[in-house]
Amino acid sequence: MEFLDFSELAAVGKLQHYAQSPCDLTEPALLSSHRFAKYHLSSCGFDLLYACQRLDDAVLTALQELADEAELVEKFLAMKQGAVLNRIEGFPSENRQVLHTSSRDVFRDSPDHPPSVQQAKKQLARLRAFLKDLESSRIVNQAGEPFTTMVQVGIGGSDLGPRALCLALAAWGRPNHRVDFISNVDPDDAARVLAGVDLSRTLVNVVSKSGTTLETVTNERLVRETFVRAGLDPTRHLVAVTGKSSPMDDSTRYLATFHMYDYIGGRYSATSMVGMVTLGFLLGYDRALEVLAGAHAMDRAAEEKNIRQNIPLLMAMIGIWNHNFLGFPTHAVLPYSQALVRFPAHLQQCDMESNGKSVTRLGGPVRWQTGPVVWGEPGTNGQHAFYQLLHQGTEIVPVEFIGFRHSQYGQDFRVQGTTSQQKLVANMLAQSLALARGRDHDNPNKYFPGNRPSLVLLADRLTPSTMGALLALYEHRIVFQGFCWNINSFDQEGVQLGKALANRFLAELSAGDDHRQEFAGDSPEKFLLGLVNSSKSG
Amino acid sequence: MEFLDFSELAAVGKLQHYAQSPCDLTEPALLSSHRFAKYHLSSCGFDLLYACQRLDDAVLTALQELADEAELVEKFLAMKQGAVLNRIEGFPSENRQVLHTSSRDVFRDSPDHPPSVQQAKKQLARLRAFLKDLESSRIVNQAGEPFTTMVQVGIGGSDLGPRALCLALAAWGRPNHRVDFISNVDPDDAARVLAGVDLSRTLVNVVSKSGTTLETVTNERLVRETFVRAGLDPTRHLVAVTGKSSPMDDSTRYLATFHMYDYIGGRYSATSMVGMVTLGFLLGYDRALEVLAGAHAMDRAAEEKNIRQNIPLLMAMIGIWNHNFLGFPTHAVLPYSQALVRFPAHLQQCDMESNGKSVTRLGGPVRWQTGPVVWGEPGTNGQHAFYQLLHQGTEIVPVEFIGFRHSQYGQDFRVQGTTSQQKLVANMLAQSLALARGRDHDNPNKYFPGNRPSLVLLADRLTPSTMGALLALYEHRIVFQGFCWNINSFDQEGVQLGKALANRFLAELSAGDDHRQEFAGDSPEKFLLGLVNSSKSG
Repeated sequence: MEFLDFSELAAVGKLQHYAQSPCDLTEPALLSSHRFAKYHLSSCGFDLLYACQRLDDAVLTALQELADEAELVEKFLAMKQGAVLNRIEGFPSENRQVLHTSSRDVFRDSPDHPPSVQQAKKQLARLRAFLKDLESSRIVNQAGEPFTTMVQVGIGGSDLGPRALCLALAAWGRPNHRVDFISNVDPDDAARVLAGVDLSRTLVNVVSKSGTTLETVTNERLVRETFVRAGLDPTRHLVAVTGKSSPMDDSTRYLATFHMYDYIGGRYSATSMVGMVTLGFLLGYDRALEVLAGAHAMDRAAEEKNIRQNIPLLMAMIGIWNHNFLGFPTHAVLPYSQALVRFPAHLQQCDMESNGKSVTRLGGPVRWQTGPVVWGEPGTNGQHAFYQLLHQGTEIVPVEFIGFRHSQYGQDFRVQGTTSQQKLVANMLAQSLALARGRDHDNPNKYFPGNRPSLVLLADRLTPSTMGALLALYEHRIVFQGFCWNINSFDQEGVQLGKALANRFLAELSAGDDHRQEFAGDSPEKFLLGLVNSSKSG
Repeated sequence: MEFLDFSELAAVGKLQHYAQSPCDLTEPALLSSHRFAKYHLSSCGFDLLYACQRLDDAVLTALQELADEAELVEKFLAMKQGAVLNRIEGFPSENRQVLHTSSRDVFRDSPDHPPSVQQAKKQLARLRAFLKDLESSRIVNQAGEPFTTMVQVGIGGSDLGPRALCLALAAWGRPNHRVDFISNVDPDDAARVLAGVDLSRTLVNVVSKSGTTLETVTNERLVRETFVRAGLDPTRHLVAVTGKSSPMDDSTRYLATFHMYDYIGGRYSATSMVGMVTLGFLLGYDRALEVLAGAHAMDRAAEEKNIRQNIPLLMAMIGIWNHNFLGFPTHAVLPYSQALVRFPAHLQQCDMESNGKSVTRLGGPVRWQTGPVVWGEPGTNGQHAFYQLLHQGTEIVPVEFIGFRHSQYGQDFRVQGTTSQQKLVANMLAQSLALARGRDHDNPNKYFPGNRPSLVLLADRLTPSTMGALLALYEHRIVFQGFCWNINSFDQEGVQLGKALANRFLAELSAGDDHRQEFAGDSPEKFLLGLVNSSKSG
């Protein structure tokens, strides 16, 4: 396995050449049904339609060469088998394996990395037993009643992925089981959530790998205090998910504790206990396990070397074509499903924290663009919002649409001859075509330039299994791009400096009025602290 | 008043010249307390800190010239006084006045545009009477009980602004008054919301200016059906906000109707009845009126011609400096307040739908960049997500931070010597400094390049009045930029083509299997319809 810089890959030169005159989607007859049938692939319950990308067979061949040359699938396999890929050569770094796929490699006799899979299975067994105890009322509150609510306290990867999953699958939630989330250090976040639950029947699931995350430690303290004030014993309401031997790994302080491991990064941890405890509470154990099964199926499908038969790999390569060669700085993920309302926020973390990097695996500066800005909101809502810019703005944004043939609740209704679900899907497909085709018009304000790339992911229904596959699909898309750019997608050094500067402010604030001294007279810190303390209304 | 193209303005050449060597924020001693004190302005309860922008006095002088030359304040005043600014010269267009400021110009004897203010006052009086009837139980449900929930059905501007306001001000909500929203044509959206309310005590507020918005008409039908199935009379539960004489303007079908006017665009309508009915239900009339008072104060403050004394105008000019001259394609709005969780989504619509344009006021093509991609999530959450890219990625994203000295609920807690609110504000200020300063380091992976621009908006507390001012601040920031780029920020022709294509799909879907004919054999539509109908699981 070789780690070559992106700029050294031979296919890069070819692609740069093709990018000088990429195919024009507004060319008459280009967007034929033949092209749609050809640029279409089915895998793990998803159809991927990429006819509306600015590419042709030659570009696809070069993208295949790029994937081969950069040994993307080989590196992906090595990752799943336990290679230490979270590192920068020659410099102190986290030096860790990257084994989020193990958390769902629990369905076969010969998994890719047996030791970590063994740990995953052990945690799943403990979760199963815990959920059974709740169901059978072996675990109840002080009044002998069952618990009806679980509030997850976590931030970043301990919040966004789990939250996106729970929102996506709320339709599959069990009666009398609801979940909510507290993440922000903003005290109003906890106040609002705690005001909306019956504390006596609420479990709080505190999630932090290190057991020292400032926001989570603070919110746990606030939650414990709230239970005590309500005359309840926090130890009978709090559950912990944390790393072994972290300050939080203390079974005397929690009703139950589950473990996470340093070989799974926060943003890739939704299918570990980080996401599964709350999801299991909401859906029940068996349904939650279907999420893992869906993810595992995608983990296997992503081993295919032919980019035209591997959805995450192809989407990774198309993303690189758009970003590095056609020069588009952002891409939007637009799910036509209200249940996926927070999925783009999860992707924003998973993608931008993984690939927002400027250093190669060998410690050199990157000389090419790495991760783009990722953003998005559900359609059809977006159509009534920012789509104006997508169609007629001066910024060009490649779009990834995600849609489903059937609704989750099945509570649908025919208006003007079609169901709401049909309207939803029709709008998604129409937007993709409209962006590509554009429209000529005498009125310049009604003219659409077209030639704006998009792709469509279509599945039958947003089920636990589909959601698992979708989550894994995007994880692999991101990881493949990171390998291709020859960066470490698994660390996050870029979050440290802000923390260090915040701690300096906090030291000054906690020192009290008489002991402030750290900041020199001319430092902006001094000015800013003065401004924060100069409240107008008190 | 003259409408000059952006490229014709003399200040543009100057700014292009300055942009060749903009100030470097990492230069030793540049970020002094003196600079922070100088690049700081206070207005309407907000402090704006812009020392961490890549500009100096010369750039500010040129930006002032740009604002003067383009007559931004004159155009803003003309807008408030009723000029027909929603138009493209020489071509069919909406040809309307732009009078969202009238909806809050209700506090003085000589408003800017008396006829529209008269209409606003009349609607407010009707809202006040309606809310009084609810409070005094003159209006009750069929069982004689008061209503406890209002669900707003609307999409785009009839959803995002009102939703952002209600979430922002939930802490100020009255006991036993909660609100929710249905927007998406996705049937699961309505199913989820309706499953979570006690229908018998729920009012549904249907909002559509035209009375024909597909999503809203469909959802209204679905809601009515749900009431009927529950044995309830929809007419006693539904309220309408719509244009005069629209198909929805029919008092026999609603418990109450309120009017909106064609001189207020959807994305600017949060302070009209579009937002005020639900907000009034949540907060009570007097508190809701404070939102208008805050917005009105900002409307007045935005008349100031000196950019260094006018927050929205200065932020508009700084945005143009970053976008058109320094070349940054996106900007992020990052509120350090969980209550503002959906405010970036509102801004995304308001900004990108207003300024994502390619045609000048005179119908010519723009030859400069117009609106950027706008995105954001609350901090500190974002710090554990996409901030990695902000600090060390290859894309540079100018950031607007929004923070508050005090929390809303006041339920705070000291951990490690500081309150959560202090941690929140300290983190925000630290991030701004970290982006600007960067940090040198022997380990290339711990190196931060710095020189990344940001600004900070700081206020005492997120109250109804502060929220009104913040909403108006961003409205004007957007409008000033639209005037400067010489585009029409008030229409949205870019949403029409997708609608037309969706309707073709829907016509085919509703025609039934035997009558499909519209799409020719080789059209992609035919292929796509086949794929949608080829469900794998049925």
